Amino acid sequence: MATNQEEVKLLGAMGSAFVCRVQIALKLKGIEYKFVQENIANKSDLLLKYNPVYKKIPVFVHNEKPISESLVILEYIDDTWKQNPILPSEPYQRALARFWSKFIDEKVKMLSFKLWSSVHVVDDDKERAKNVAETFEALQFLENELKEKFFGGEEIGFVDIAAVFIAFWIPLIQDVTGLQLLTAEKFPKLYQWSQKFLNHPIVEQCLPPRDPVFSYFKAHYDSLFLSK
Amino acid sequence: MATNQEEVKLLGAMGSAFVCRVQIALKLKGIEYKFVQENIANKSDLLLKYNPVYKKIPVFVHNEKPISESLVILEYIDDTWKQNPILPSEPYQRALARFWSKFIDEKVKMLSFKLWSSVHVVDDDKERAKNVAETFEALQFLENELKEKFFGGEEIGFVDIAAVFIAFWIPLIQDVTGLQLLTAEKFPKLYQWSQKFLNHPIVEQCLPPRDPVFSYFKAHYDSLFLSK
Repeated sequence: MATNQEEVKLLGAMGSAFVCRVQIALKLKGIEYKFVQENIANKSDLLLKYNPVYKKIPVFVHNEKPISESLVILEYIDDTWKQNPILPSEPYQRALARFWSKFIDEKVKMLSFKLWSSVHVVDDDKERAKNVAETFEALQFLENELKEKFFGGEEIGFVDIAAVFIAFWIPLIQDVTGLQLLTAEKFPKLYQWSQKFLNHPIVEQCLPPRDPVFSYFKAHYDSLFLSK
Repeated sequence: MATNQEEVKLLGAMGSAFVCRVQIALKLKGIEYKFVQENIANKSDLLLKYNPVYKKIPVFVHNEKPISESLVILEYIDDTWKQNPILPSEPYQRALARFWSKFIDEKVKMLSFKLWSSVHVVDDDKERAKNVAETFEALQFLENELKEKFFGGEEIGFVDIAAVFIAFWIPLIQDVTGLQLLTAEKFPKLYQWSQKFLNHPIVEQCLPPRDPVFSYFKAHYDSLFLSK
């Protein structure tokens, strides 16, 4: 637990997978914190002061010291509060956890964003098919990597937390766009993982409510069509 | 030192900034290793086996266990061999080192690659000017961040090693393209840092010879013009 002397704040907004990562890590560690709601359309002076480089959420602030970038924040939380470690203690396993988390950010996230922006371009079937194929290839690597209940073994760890984007946000993209990405047929292990992960008692408490996030995504998707 | 029982290998090629990062870290730690020369135009079965995801160098192999991605490799080396630590021990300073190294990879490297590919498009002044302005902005953040002799303080550390790309490769891009990027006038602290860093006795031993790398870059640059 954070002691009385400590001030722990998280600048975030509902519906961000990257903010959600930090929330899961803090909940796992039992760290109490103040959530500072940001409006992405009208960024606060505090956000601009604390993250002048990217001007993005999440920003984690511990005793007035700000940290940006969700994976960097997860490492900091694990370095600072030792209970319920999220990274393995063995160096090679740590390296693999870092590798796959980076892979999720660079491949899966990037491809999903590309899919999102290409899917409404109804006349560019080729680009869309290429993005879908690359997303499948990326998810297949993770499917092959899943050897136990969670990426972290019997308990959730760093890669599971990084992959909240896959468990919660990819199905949303799927439902809005009609694309079939993470299905039980195509990726049985990853799909099963996503169900166990989403129903994990700690994760469950940190996820945003599905309906408003779905409505937000749907409205954004429809606006892409309208703006064509 | 690696013991007799250990096998330490690095799959790499001359002239890669990312391979050079690993070489500097190993030299700082005093770890002996076998350098396995890769031909990027004709990748070996070993490279494809050890890095099936990205099929890129560097790959670091410790007792047959492969690790890819240079920053992940640096963390592994620091986790495994404790002498001459490259990451700070204090969690907040570690977080900052990770943040700025990621920034170098995502911003400076990406912008340099964009510059490289846009600079020969002589009729797209606007795109080139935008890339130069963004590169200046990124370098300015690092200029502001430099408070001591090195990013790591009095000794070189994680960010310095990550920034070998800026010290050695950006001046090469500069000399080939004629663009003025890292100059003593515009970025006095960063320029001074680059000189101290390049002349550091450990770094000096790890840098590739300048002339062949320059010739390689120049030939590539000229071929971009010819292929227009």
